[in-house]
Amino acid sequence: MASPLILYGSLVDSISLTHLRYLSNALICINQHGIIDWLVPNVPSSSVASVLSEKGLKGTQVTQLKKGQFLSPGFIDTHTHAPQHPNLGTGGQYQLLDWLENVTFPREARFKDVDYSRKVYERVVKRTLDLGTTTSCYYGSLHLESTKVLADVVHAGGQRGFVGKCNMDSNCPSTYIEPSPSASIADTVSLISHIRSLPASSPTSTPLVQPIITPRFAISCSAPLLQGLGDLVRSEKEAGTEVAVQTHLGENHGEIAFTKEIFAGANERGGMKNGWDGSYAGVYESFGLLGERTILAHCVHLEETELQTIKRTNSGISHCPTSNLNLRSGCAKVGEMLERGIKVGLGTDCSGGYESGILSQIRSASTTSKLISMASPSSAPSSPETPPPEAATSTPRYSTLPQLPLPTLFHLATLGGASLCGLDKVVGNFEVGKEFDALLVDLGEERGNGALWFDEEEGGEEGWLEGGFEQWIWTGDDRNIAKVWVQGRLVGGKDL
Amino acid sequence: MASPLILYGSLVDSISLTHLRYLSNALICINQHGIIDWLVPNVPSSSVASVLSEKGLKGTQVTQLKKGQFLSPGFIDTHTHAPQHPNLGTGGQYQLLDWLENVTFPREARFKDVDYSRKVYERVVKRTLDLGTTTSCYYGSLHLESTKVLADVVHAGGQRGFVGKCNMDSNCPSTYIEPSPSASIADTVSLISHIRSLPASSPTSTPLVQPIITPRFAISCSAPLLQGLGDLVRSEKEAGTEVAVQTHLGENHGEIAFTKEIFAGANERGGMKNGWDGSYAGVYESFGLLGERTILAHCVHLEETELQTIKRTNSGISHCPTSNLNLRSGCAKVGEMLERGIKVGLGTDCSGGYESGILSQIRSASTTSKLISMASPSSAPSSPETPPPEAATSTPRYSTLPQLPLPTLFHLATLGGASLCGLDKVVGNFEVGKEFDALLVDLGEERGNGALWFDEEEGGEEGWLEGGFEQWIWTGDDRNIAKVWVQGRLVGGKDL
Repeated sequence: MASPLILYGSLVDSISLTHLRYLSNALICINQHGIIDWLVPNVPSSSVASVLSEKGLKGTQVTQLKKGQFLSPGFIDTHTHAPQHPNLGTGGQYQLLDWLENVTFPREARFKDVDYSRKVYERVVKRTLDLGTTTSCYYGSLHLESTKVLADVVHAGGQRGFVGKCNMDSNCPSTYIEPSPSASIADTVSLISHIRSLPASSPTSTPLVQPIITPRFAISCSAPLLQGLGDLVRSEKEAGTEVAVQTHLGENHGEIAFTKEIFAGANERGGMKNGWDGSYAGVYESFGLLGERTILAHCVHLEETELQTIKRTNSGISHCPTSNLNLRSGCAKVGEMLERGIKVGLGTDCSGGYESGILSQIRSASTTSKLISMASPSSAPSSPETPPPEAATSTPRYSTLPQLPLPTLFHLATLGGASLCGLDKVVGNFEVGKEFDALLVDLGEERGNGALWFDEEEGGEEGWLEGGFEQWIWTGDDRNIAKVWVQGRLVGGKDL
Repeated sequence: MASPLILYGSLVDSISLTHLRYLSNALICINQHGIIDWLVPNVPSSSVASVLSEKGLKGTQVTQLKKGQFLSPGFIDTHTHAPQHPNLGTGGQYQLLDWLENVTFPREARFKDVDYSRKVYERVVKRTLDLGTTTSCYYGSLHLESTKVLADVVHAGGQRGFVGKCNMDSNCPSTYIEPSPSASIADTVSLISHIRSLPASSPTSTPLVQPIITPRFAISCSAPLLQGLGDLVRSEKEAGTEVAVQTHLGENHGEIAFTKEIFAGANERGGMKNGWDGSYAGVYESFGLLGERTILAHCVHLEETELQTIKRTNSGISHCPTSNLNLRSGCAKVGEMLERGIKVGLGTDCSGGYESGILSQIRSASTTSKLISMASPSSAPSSPETPPPEAATSTPRYSTLPQLPLPTLFHLATLGGASLCGLDKVVGNFEVGKEFDALLVDLGEERGNGALWFDEEEGGEEGWLEGGFEQWIWTGDDRNIAKVWVQGRLVGGKDL
């Protein structure tokens, strides 16, 4: 990438939980390291050449966006299971625990086969990039070698990602379980080394693929395994190589009850040496697994004490709304989490959720927020979504709103997800100095998405952007994602 | 269409509320009038020629479906607003009454322009056909000439449809309202004549486009207008030319309260001569607008007496689940309706719903049913969707199930919708003697739908069908609809 990438046109990004930024005639320069070097809004087309000249880039080629096209930050999927993508759209009759036994574990057991894994994972990475997912937090299977392959494939595909192998030595079928805590931990250490050995794009670039410690969920982990993983987190932190953690929390009533039963027993036997407050989140905390790099998926049914624990430890929550509805888990109270200042991103949770892209999670998150408001006696049924005036500079009181507003939903999908992953200084919007993880969205009829109705003749040269963005959020699909860049490199999209 | 259309391969259709039929190696013959002449299941490929020979069709060309392809009945959209399609994906911040004022009525007012109307309607018909909607119940705008154009466009496009112009002389903006009951009724009569004058495909064919009387909703109609429309329904019935009726019912609390207020006043003034039981449904009944050809959209909030009225009059319900969630109307209790033997179909309600196809309504209807079960104290949280054994021959007790089962959902989208439209003897499944309104579904990777994961190497030659069908329902889109036939004529689809 010798010369910089210069784009000229419209863009939309999230600048806070409450505000979107719409820019027209923006000139944006991405340097050879994939970093946004500068961005000048409202440049008349007659001035493009002179701005380039001022920047010392006279004559550099400019990619000009047309009406109906705009740049969006790439989406961040904060929770997905790579080996479950082949199961998408199957098993919708089950709730969580039955679904794991009948649908999930039999599929994942097949990932012992490294060749099968490579074939599936290449398809997963290609598809999710094309769906606009520039960063993905992957659970692999429990297999070390296959999960190394997953990391290799994500790296080769140019996607930004976190890759973890599932730790699971308890309460799983005999055909799909790890033999011991020590074997599970040794494989985890080996995977971390492997991922850290993958080369960066250039000596100065951020590594695209990072390891993530992945105790599947408390039920599948013995107390010694959780303790060993907690020790690993601590020792990495002490060594200055902090590692992320991902797991599940509070998804389903049956899961919660079983978790408490198991760990009450472990606690009685003295297996939880750091103390335990009796809650599900408290299990993870007692083993040292909660911290600012921890991503907790689902969190549909949280106790007050758990919300406080999450906030206190600065952990974050991956909201998986389609999965939560599909598996009849329930509606996670995202507004309440945000009001408390807890970090929240969106997750597809494939294949608990049957949708593999984040655009549809925005829609599901909206639906979920509307359901919460409809179920609440204090809901304001006929007021529009505009936050009260005082919200302009602070977090809105979401519990007084009939739904999550569009700026908040888009924040969850981009900048909020980046915060959850510890990447908000690196990606999530088009701030100068960040890396360019972006989508070229195209609303044009010729894209072939017969669900999106964009009228080229309306809205003038600039007035179309806000309405067009809203139409994309509700009716767009991967056909409207023409290009996908990660770290300034073109890695996907359905360009015609 | 000189020689018959012969197809050989897999098919899936609904044979009852509780049962899907999966056929492999089916040989199906559609005659020159578009009627299914015969269907032979399980024909080994070596016997195809001899079956054709027996049928006197030796040497007729056979279209052979491959693995991953199957025939499905076309979808029936029992509630959509043609002029609102350009608004898809906009205005999601509103509830019903604000949304009508800010989003809907201003758009519909533009359909005074016949040229604009034709342009939009051609796009609506093309798109919905490609989305697999072979029959659509259309609300036009209030304009006579534009709604004639809508009927012409549906007819020319080869879609089966019901077309009505909105009757609305009350409680609407001054820029979008009819001047009087008599003008509204005269235009309705004129539209009915126009639609009946459209030529059938052949002298023996069923007319594809039928008129439908369309009092928008009770709020927008004065008592004299509803009375005039009821008189028209009766006189048509007496003349042996029964005409269908469509309107809205019980969508939103504000709408319901306002309706009761208005008609309580009308009743006091003696404006409702047939008596009124005080309910919203009772308004329509008192004016003679409920009957076996009446389609009532939404029905989210029904009183016990209204359910009884609907059952007694053999009216049917169009369930619009995406719209009901999007406009925060609520969750219609479809299981309870079905248990009572009430006819139910699915509707997109564009643009109250932001999805223009029925496949996504199946998903939303599933979500809605899960939400009802989750909110119910008697829900059986961990049982799978299998109906109890006694349900094999009768209507399942839906209130004991955690969700609507897939066969029921697909029934709503096809045969159930056909019943609602009075077309269940004509279309809705592949019964011999019915007209061939069908989709060629193709799950293949080359279709480009990166959300559907069909593995060509799994399931053998026949075992793939049931799982593939489920994947299509949850993750398919219009890219997987290769061909669309109405009355045996190829009218849409995204064939490559």
